[in-house]
Amino acid sequence: MTDLLIRNARPMGGPPSDLLIRAGRIAAIGPDLDPGGAPIEDAAGRLAIPGLVDAHTHLDKSMLGHPWWRNDIGPTIMDRIETERRVKRERALDPHVQSMRHALRSLGFGTTRIRSHVDVDTDQGLAALEGVAETRRALAGQVEIEIVAFPQSGLLIRPGTAELLDAALAAGADLVGGLDPCAIDRDPKGHLDVVFGLAEKHGKPVDIHLHERGELGAFSLELILERTEALSMQGRVAVSHAFCLGMPDRARAAALTERIAALEVRVLTTAPAFAPVPAVKELLAAGVVVGAGNDGFRDVWTPYGTGDMLERAMLLGLRNDLRRDADLELALRLCTEGGAAAMDAPRHRLEPGAPGDVVLLEGETLAEAVAVPAPRALVAKAGRVVGRDGRALAPAP
Amino acid sequence: MTDLLIRNARPMGGPPSDLLIRAGRIAAIGPDLDPGGAPIEDAAGRLAIPGLVDAHTHLDKSMLGHPWWRNDIGPTIMDRIETERRVKRERALDPHVQSMRHALRSLGFGTTRIRSHVDVDTDQGLAALEGVAETRRALAGQVEIEIVAFPQSGLLIRPGTAELLDAALAAGADLVGGLDPCAIDRDPKGHLDVVFGLAEKHGKPVDIHLHERGELGAFSLELILERTEALSMQGRVAVSHAFCLGMPDRARAAALTERIAALEVRVLTTAPAFAPVPAVKELLAAGVVVGAGNDGFRDVWTPYGTGDMLERAMLLGLRNDLRRDADLELALRLCTEGGAAAMDAPRHRLEPGAPGDVVLLEGETLAEAVAVPAPRALVAKAGRVVGRDGRALAPAP
Repeated sequence: MTDLLIRNARPMGGPPSDLLIRAGRIAAIGPDLDPGGAPIEDAAGRLAIPGLVDAHTHLDKSMLGHPWWRNDIGPTIMDRIETERRVKRERALDPHVQSMRHALRSLGFGTTRIRSHVDVDTDQGLAALEGVAETRRALAGQVEIEIVAFPQSGLLIRPGTAELLDAALAAGADLVGGLDPCAIDRDPKGHLDVVFGLAEKHGKPVDIHLHERGELGAFSLELILERTEALSMQGRVAVSHAFCLGMPDRARAAALTERIAALEVRVLTTAPAFAPVPAVKELLAAGVVVGAGNDGFRDVWTPYGTGDMLERAMLLGLRNDLRRDADLELALRLCTEGGAAAMDAPRHRLEPGAPGDVVLLEGETLAEAVAVPAPRALVAKAGRVVGRDGRALAPAP
Repeated sequence: MTDLLIRNARPMGGPPSDLLIRAGRIAAIGPDLDPGGAPIEDAAGRLAIPGLVDAHTHLDKSMLGHPWWRNDIGPTIMDRIETERRVKRERALDPHVQSMRHALRSLGFGTTRIRSHVDVDTDQGLAALEGVAETRRALAGQVEIEIVAFPQSGLLIRPGTAELLDAALAAGADLVGGLDPCAIDRDPKGHLDVVFGLAEKHGKPVDIHLHERGELGAFSLELILERTEALSMQGRVAVSHAFCLGMPDRARAAALTERIAALEVRVLTTAPAFAPVPAVKELLAAGVVVGAGNDGFRDVWTPYGTGDMLERAMLLGLRNDLRRDADLELALRLCTEGGAAAMDAPRHRLEPGAPGDVVLLEGETLAEAVAVPAPRALVAKAGRVVGRDGRALAPAP
């Protein structure tokens, strides 16, 4: 919680202003502000935006810092799940070290808030959770990390996993995760009863991976919405991916979207190019809170990705065919304010009273900054400078 | 046409080797080659690949070097066509200057061969063609440029355009272009009769933009295939985009693909995330020659893009859900050898006798180089060093 004066920035592409941060929050925005003893950074006319928010990633999965892993595995989710468990053992990946590398790289790109799903399974128990929790403590004050206890390997098909999730929530995980209730556990009712049962027991929210497409995903989504309503969990449930909302039957998708909005279920998208995806403008028009995430990168799941949420805004724009400047700004808002709202961090905007998370971007306009992402000149978290020139100041292990 | 010895590279990810280029062609690949007086470049163990090939772009469209252009126009192709004509006038864009900027940027990324569609219309006549032809002359020996005379504004709906295309071909354009025979001219037979008539008259090949989706695009494609067969133009016709091949009816798409292969029609894809696209692995399995292109960037059509064909290989991989290393290498081949084959430039590979177009990439493996593109250390065209550290050596205007 520190003080900082950023001189000569262009907040959200507006006219040049100073931004004054006091005790970690934005105190004033305007011309020629008095630093009152705060350290001064010269933005040199750069764009200023709030901290980027990665609302869906996996801090425990990347192989950053390890030799390239040759991917020659099959194309199913189960191929990836089984291979990942093997690779984690073979490479003896340390969840704390890997999550530090991932989180610090993200921070260098301007991400000041992360929701990470973390694998909980009968192979490694709570080891990944403990490693990521250690990273959260190590990076406190630099990036905020939310942890979802995530049954990546299945819940009912691996007896003992429900008990581990229970222990994870007792040990400090912030949310209960879930995964493709039909496709992985082959028992959607059973899967969701455990997930929502744990949420009720611990009084914690839910965030469920839903890759299932078309009618199958719509069915699982209906089961999620029924439980959200029955347990009065409005505003406490998120669905990640939600590929089924990209289904060809747009009337069916619209009806589901309407119900999602009414039950205040959040949708988190990574906007992949290969899959049907929720149309973000349709979700927003219906009043749904939408955030975005990078998902994992350089892991068993995908060779692609850098961890940069500004690049994600670009990919989200490409996937949703956003070309107008106002629409590129919308993509950027999903990667800042949208993700923060989905994580119950309100007022994640550049305005007095808001958190002092500020990122300086290159570019004439916000649209240009999104269309052609360049390294960030400066990243401040609650008024503390934590990144410069695309890199976190803190060294990664 | 020069000599060059590249020491200690890893051709296509293989073991460290030297590459010797003599009189512009690869003379030998192996350990400890004798330079015989050729200048020496140390690759320091980097990956070596053939020159990247941008088989579909628009050198005359970008606004590189101009202030950001605020896009607030409608979403149709006709909105973009009409706006572009207006913006070109308002900004007085010089086709030679703009194409130099675009081509040199591409060259810095390692592109040694480009097929550019160039607008021919009743507003500007052959001015864009002349500007790009001037760029071709200026950059001879650094990057090879093919020019398609392209009726961007429509052919039959703007009387006089056919005559301009005729003049463009007489003046040195290499190919006849065409565009959405149903959607723009509203007269598919008339449009294609003019395009193929000009091709026959001038003995030049054809490359047609086909954005039309589903059955409409399939119909236009059938008309193209009929004319290809009737005029015995096997190997002389390319279809760019071919979104209709991404249609839901996969049996119909497969039948069209089979006929495309039989008639040796080439398919050029930009693999956009927002549209249905041809599945590149299906095309290759059917024996179709497939190339890739970046399309335009920073223009009225799109705010996105950098001109980097290695980034295009990444986007092509993301769009086609290519995750295995072998599949990422395939994406890279489409952006080198595939595009060259589509442009009748055979043997665009790292092997003795092939052109001395060599690019050095960062990364442990080719897959890594595609998944996370980094600046190119060195670009050689026919043995001449033309780019270093991501930039062309020649200055842009």
